[in-house]
Amino acid sequence: MELKEIRLKDLKPAKFIEEKAAEIAAAVGEGVAVNALSGGVDSSVVTLLGHRALGSRLKTYFIENGIMRAGEAGYIVSVFKKLGVKVEVLDAKKQFFGALKGLTDPEEKREAITQTFYKKVFGRIVRKSGARHLLQGTILTDVDETLAGIKRQHNVFEQLGIDPQKAFGYRILEPLIQLRKDGVRKVGQALGLPAEIFRRIPFPGPALSARVIGEVTPERIATVRKATVVVERLLKGTGAFQYMAILHQDRVTGMRNGKRDFGNQIEVRCWDSLDARKATPTRLPFPVLEKLAREILREVPGVVSVTYNITGKPPSTIEAV
Amino acid sequence: MELKEIRLKDLKPAKFIEEKAAEIAAAVGEGVAVNALSGGVDSSVVTLLGHRALGSRLKTYFIENGIMRAGEAGYIVSVFKKLGVKVEVLDAKKQFFGALKGLTDPEEKREAITQTFYKKVFGRIVRKSGARHLLQGTILTDVDETLAGIKRQHNVFEQLGIDPQKAFGYRILEPLIQLRKDGVRKVGQALGLPAEIFRRIPFPGPALSARVIGEVTPERIATVRKATVVVERLLKGTGAFQYMAILHQDRVTGMRNGKRDFGNQIEVRCWDSLDARKATPTRLPFPVLEKLAREILREVPGVVSVTYNITGKPPSTIEAV
Repeated sequence: MELKEIRLKDLKPAKFIEEKAAEIAAAVGEGVAVNALSGGVDSSVVTLLGHRALGSRLKTYFIENGIMRAGEAGYIVSVFKKLGVKVEVLDAKKQFFGALKGLTDPEEKREAITQTFYKKVFGRIVRKSGARHLLQGTILTDVDETLAGIKRQHNVFEQLGIDPQKAFGYRILEPLIQLRKDGVRKVGQALGLPAEIFRRIPFPGPALSARVIGEVTPERIATVRKATVVVERLLKGTGAFQYMAILHQDRVTGMRNGKRDFGNQIEVRCWDSLDARKATPTRLPFPVLEKLAREILREVPGVVSVTYNITGKPPSTIEAV
Repeated sequence: MELKEIRLKDLKPAKFIEEKAAEIAAAVGEGVAVNALSGGVDSSVVTLLGHRALGSRLKTYFIENGIMRAGEAGYIVSVFKKLGVKVEVLDAKKQFFGALKGLTDPEEKREAITQTFYKKVFGRIVRKSGARHLLQGTILTDVDETLAGIKRQHNVFEQLGIDPQKAFGYRILEPLIQLRKDGVRKVGQALGLPAEIFRRIPFPGPALSARVIGEVTPERIATVRKATVVVERLLKGTGAFQYMAILHQDRVTGMRNGKRDFGNQIEVRCWDSLDARKATPTRLPFPVLEKLAREILREVPGVVSVTYNITGKPPSTIEAV
């Protein structure tokens, strides 16, 4: 597949789906393919597109890594069940938390998640499945960011624990690689994905571990998960591109029952953006900001302080770590 | 002096000044008194009140601890020179940074500053001066917060390195202890302090070290000092009660020249409050918030992210550590 951008104005979703499904079907032939569904827009669209091409010869897995949003696995399984797609959930919480234990450096955390995902969990699935084709939801922005050094480039086969010498015959299929986020959403809509999925705000690969500064533990994930529920509930009606809660490692002073008490700080970010390349903080009305703070303080134990990020991208990034 | 609050509506500044100056003069008699002037509203007012009572028999010192705002010592000396009050500047930067080295716990940092101030620096001045009277700008809110456990109570003599057995004869004079901040400002105005001083926003005892989460080093103080210059320049016209820049220890991802780059985050707080007991974040217009972020990013090296605190006090406190 050539790497020429298909701009939103040039995208004809029905034709795109027909062509890409035909390419996938031709590539896989009589074999099987596998993919990991995270529940984000890209992986959801690629799952449905692959299912259109291959039917039940596409095996789709949801990896429960313990760092997803509240109720995520059950939600995604039920959405895809309604679309006639079977999703198998694999509980890998112990592997992920084990790999993350003691790590505080953002790069090391990211690497631990990537390694655990590819080598320990998804790699095993691929090797056991006998599939020679992997379907991935890579989009053009991922490629740009890899080239710019913002995301890191990987040799996928090496990551999967597949000897490059034996990798001959394995193929990665990336049918969305000519699109940006807006195009992916349009294709998702045309495929019949529900709006709650194809309009879903972006969510990072390292999931809630990207929303925790410092060590990722089950307790700290539980804290940021609760804050995420509040932020998503209060901001879903804003039309913003993306919004998130970030748990800081820094402790700040608060007061509880009139006494000094060091506690956690949650940072809220809410972005206006077309395609994540540039972004500006949403100009949320102050009553909304104040409600965010009040409800996070009420619903998330241990939090004494809430901030709102007011920096644009660049020089900020969308995520904190 | 009895500890009965004098409310703003009941305060007659001229009468208050006359009475307190008489009390100070009577207490000190023919002796000398000393005080440390930080440049804040309380210590500035007590300096001028003490000077009214004692003239040059009040020795006033500005302790240059290395953690004050940009240009602070020179500014305060010149303001008081115009008022006919001589202020002696004592360079104690090395002592303070030495005591703070390696400390990250907020309580330990605070304690190191307190100990250095009283035992090493001010204590030596008091002991050398032969003064038996210390003038302090304690106000009623300090007393409340000490009783509530928010500030910690100290035995001042012990802190000064003066044996409690020999402390007999030493006296702490706290002429502002029946007032809250609004009353202190009114007295300052009546004493002839310039508005830029008596309307000055509150500034904490531990100075910029209270604005640095984690270790206090000359480099980190330089960073938060530059951010403080921007915040004070842009917010001084708002009429807010207090505003500040806080340097976080947490590093967040940013982009520089298209590459991922971990950098510092500055948190801005701006408070609406009458007397610091309760406070709410000022509803700053978004263009002001965005300008704050832009100018901090431009003027403070190493900063890639700026947040605005949206939590009320309580459960937040005014300062972060």
